[in-house]
Amino acid sequence: MIYELYYWPGIQGRGEFVRLALEEAEAEYIDVALIPEEEGGGITAMEKFFEDESIERPPFAPPFLKAGRQLIGQTPNILLFLGGRLGLAPRDTASKLWTHQLQLTIADFVVEIHDTHHPLGSGLYYEEQKLAAKRRSKDFLANRLPKFLNYFERILDRNSADGPWMVGTRLTYVDLSMAQIIAGLHYAFPSASRKTLRACSRLRALHDLVFARPHIKRYVASGRRLAFNNDDIFRRYPELDG
Amino acid sequence: MIYELYYWPGIQGRGEFVRLALEEAEAEYIDVALIPEEEGGGITAMEKFFEDESIERPPFAPPFLKAGRQLIGQTPNILLFLGGRLGLAPRDTASKLWTHQLQLTIADFVVEIHDTHHPLGSGLYYEEQKLAAKRRSKDFLANRLPKFLNYFERILDRNSADGPWMVGTRLTYVDLSMAQIIAGLHYAFPSASRKTLRACSRLRALHDLVFARPHIKRYVASGRRLAFNNDDIFRRYPELDG
Repeated sequence: MIYELYYWPGIQGRGEFVRLALEEAEAEYIDVALIPEEEGGGITAMEKFFEDESIERPPFAPPFLKAGRQLIGQTPNILLFLGGRLGLAPRDTASKLWTHQLQLTIADFVVEIHDTHHPLGSGLYYEEQKLAAKRRSKDFLANRLPKFLNYFERILDRNSADGPWMVGTRLTYVDLSMAQIIAGLHYAFPSASRKTLRACSRLRALHDLVFARPHIKRYVASGRRLAFNNDDIFRRYPELDG
Repeated sequence: MIYELYYWPGIQGRGEFVRLALEEAEAEYIDVALIPEEEGGGITAMEKFFEDESIERPPFAPPFLKAGRQLIGQTPNILLFLGGRLGLAPRDTASKLWTHQLQLTIADFVVEIHDTHHPLGSGLYYEEQKLAAKRRSKDFLANRLPKFLNYFERILDRNSADGPWMVGTRLTYVDLSMAQIIAGLHYAFPSASRKTLRACSRLRALHDLVFARPHIKRYVASGRRLAFNNDDIFRRYPELDG
C-alpha cells in the first residue's frame, strides 16, 4: 500500500506528526501537495477533496490520508489508524486507547501553542494581534506550558515498563509526536522552554532518542523535513518568549 | 458494569457529551462529583485521581470515565470507548473511524467556541479580556461558525443512508454531541446562530430529533441536566453576539 498524505506545503504543521510515523516505519507514501502542480500535485490536488461533492466523507481540514479507498482526517485519528499497521502502537486494546488519549492531549497542547501567536483568530495577521499575543503567551508560559510538560514527564516516569518511552516497552507514534513538540518548543520559545524543561529530564532524553533513530536521522538529513518557520504552528517571535 | 463519570460540578461542559451517550443508552452510571463530599463524592473524589501518584495512567483533565479498572480520559476517546459498548457506534471499522473523526472535529469546534470568551487564556477572568473577546468573537461568527456548521450540514446531506443521522442509518454518539452543540450555540449566540442555521435545515432537524428522544427527554425533565450558565463553555454575553 502506498499512502497519500495531503497537507499544506511550506510548513511542518500537523502533517509532521504523520510524516514522522511514516518515516520511522519506512512506509511508502506520497506527500501529494509537495509534488509540482504540473505533475498533478500541489494545493490543487489537495483542494479537490474539499470541492468534490461526490465525496461522501470529506475531511474538515488538512492533514488527511488516503489509504486505498479510505480517506482519513484529524491527526490523532490518522495515527490511530496507522499505529497498528505500522507497528507503532501497543497491541492490547486498553494500551491502544491510552496511547490515543496521550495523542489527544498533545493535540490540545498544539492548539494552545498555536494560539500564543494567534489568540484573536487565524483570520487576522500576527501584526494585528501582537498585544493580545503577548498577554496570551505570558499566561501560556507561566501556567499551561509547565502544566502540560510536567504531565508528560510524569507519564514517562510512571510507565511501569521503565524504559524511555511513554507507553510500554517499545516506541509508539506518541513518542514521535512528543519529540516533535519538544523540538518545536525549542524553536519557538528557546528561553522559556529551556527553563521549564530543566525539570523534565525524561522528556529531554526522549527527544534526543527519537531524533537519533536511524530512520528519523535519515529523514532529517534528506532535506525533505521542512524547516521550522514563522508561517507554522511553532513560531519564533522573541517578544513572546517570556 | 456501573460506570463512574468524573467532571466539574455546576456546568455541563465537556462532561455533557458523555452524559448524553450514557443517558440515551440507559447505562448505569454515577456522576461522582455531583455526589456530596460527605458521601465520598464532590471535587475531592475527582482530584484524588490527579494527586494519587500510584496511578500509572492518570488523565490530564476532566472528564474521565472509570470502567472497572480502566480509567479513560479525553471526551472523544471516552465516546470511542463507549460507542461500541452502548450500541451508539457503527459496526464496521471504517465507519467507526469516521464517526470518531467527526467527534474530533466537534472537539475542535468546542475549543473555538470556548475561546470566544477566553481568547487570552483560562487564567484570566472574562472581564479582563472583554475587548479581545469581542474581536475574537467577531472573527468566529463571521468565519469559523459558518465554516463548521456548513461542513456538518454537508455531512448530513451526503450521508448516503439518507436518514436524519450523520453516519449510516442509526443514531450514533456523534449525533448526540452535534445536537448538544446546536443547543449550546442557541444559548450563547441566539442571534448569530439563528442566522447561520437558517441555511442548515438538516442540523436544525437533528437537534429537534435528539431532544425529542424518550431517554433524552426524560433526562432533561429529571432536573439532572444542569442548565447552561456563564461558567460554562457556552456563555451568553450579549456583547459578543454579533
